[in-house]
Amino acid sequence: MLTASQRDHIDIVLVSPRNPLNIGAVARAMANFGFEHLSVVAAYQPHWREARSAVGAPDLLQSAREAATLAEAVADSTLVIGTGTLTHRKPEQPVVSLPALAPLLAQELARGGRIALIFGPEKHGLTREDLSWCHTFVQIPTDPRQPSMNLGQAAAVCLYEIAARALNAAQPAPGPNRNPPGLDDNAPAAPSGDLDILAGLICDVMAAANYSPRTMQTANRHAIRLMLRRLRLNSADQRRLLGLFRRILWSFRRSPIRDITK
Amino acid sequence: MLTASQRDHIDIVLVSPRNPLNIGAVARAMANFGFEHLSVVAAYQPHWREARSAVGAPDLLQSAREAATLAEAVADSTLVIGTGTLTHRKPEQPVVSLPALAPLLAQELARGGRIALIFGPEKHGLTREDLSWCHTFVQIPTDPRQPSMNLGQAAAVCLYEIAARALNAAQPAPGPNRNPPGLDDNAPAAPSGDLDILAGLICDVMAAANYSPRTMQTANRHAIRLMLRRLRLNSADQRRLLGLFRRILWSFRRSPIRDITK
Repeated sequence: MLTASQRDHIDIVLVSPRNPLNIGAVARAMANFGFEHLSVVAAYQPHWREARSAVGAPDLLQSAREAATLAEAVADSTLVIGTGTLTHRKPEQPVVSLPALAPLLAQELARGGRIALIFGPEKHGLTREDLSWCHTFVQIPTDPRQPSMNLGQAAAVCLYEIAARALNAAQPAPGPNRNPPGLDDNAPAAPSGDLDILAGLICDVMAAANYSPRTMQTANRHAIRLMLRRLRLNSADQRRLLGLFRRILWSFRRSPIRDITK
Repeated sequence: MLTASQRDHIDIVLVSPRNPLNIGAVARAMANFGFEHLSVVAAYQPHWREARSAVGAPDLLQSAREAATLAEAVADSTLVIGTGTLTHRKPEQPVVSLPALAPLLAQELARGGRIALIFGPEKHGLTREDLSWCHTFVQIPTDPRQPSMNLGQAAAVCLYEIAARALNAAQPAPGPNRNPPGLDDNAPAAPSGDLDILAGLICDVMAAANYSPRTMQTANRHAIRLMLRRLRLNSADQRRLLGLFRRILWSFRRSPIRDITK
């Protein structure tokens, strides 16, 4: 089992949950397996209030954090993990099967990281946009004939797996092929919010450099967000690149590049 | 993952479930992890009908078996496993933690056995009487501060564990301490119903022999039921003992023992 201190470094994040019963079920599974930190993104207020005031609702619902965006909810996290099945999506980040997740979490906890586990809305799960904040996608290995799980049950299965196995895997053997690419250095990764600051600055530089037409800016932002997570920058990397791009942006603003497309 | 043939040898049994939503949730978790055989013991008919007729109910609810008693539901099973937490009970049979269950199941499947996984009613779980039909008790490792799980979530966690891990453990290393006592021979175990026939006969012999006062008969029946499961009799053992006790009973009836207590 995880220690209390390890569990304290794991956040469960629900993106736009709709059904109060499902919110309650996730909270109950968290209490069953000893997790305490719940965040809810863009909650539908009537249902969120109903879930919190339900008879027998676990205490952790009272102390749950509310966030307007997923970016805000995971700003402090160094490893953000999206959950779901692979039926209707092909994630743009490394995919790990749930039974193989433990070594990854154990390693992140061992180097002092903070983990966020993200569950999408009941109807369609996490969107491609939501997933662009995730370092890894964890796949629950369901039957192809009935792949889609109920939210409360999916949370129970994931939290059971993490609570029961992540500590046993706390000392993974070093060597190749143990971890997804780029995830085996020992410096703490930069938190998600710091990556967002860097990504925003890079986008400003792209715009200032007339790197691509305005219509491409959304796609560029998406690609940069994913790339920065794939690279697993540590905080020193992030500060160095931030300094470099600030300098570039400052230079551009002193002597703007003429937009030859206009 | 388990193969289809392995899943075909696993029955999920619900004892007196009350909430139609929970019945539906168990059926959905079964479909998610590829299990097809559901039995319901002493169903409360209005709620059972409601669960079966719910919109989107998995097909396996239509083909579910109904049984009046747990003994009847598990009559064909060679390994009967009760589920729950250990908060308010101290089982009289070996206890296995859910993350350690896979080798036991893999071994039973490898020797051609039939497994039943039993879930109790929502309110109080399996009774001591229910558990007397179980060879093993599987404990879901929950937090002591909030040990009791929702039925649908408990089923999801157990079925995930079995589907994801039992096959990987199909070849357990031989040797001591790998399995609970008495579970490491290779002959198929006698089915539960055959053990019940033997247990009934032994109780008849006890009565005919004036082994104990009438007030002890219920306790004796309970103890014998447990003992026969702990011994893991195979079918040849069961037939041999059945023959022996039939002969003893026949002898008693030819020349009855005088009841010296009367």
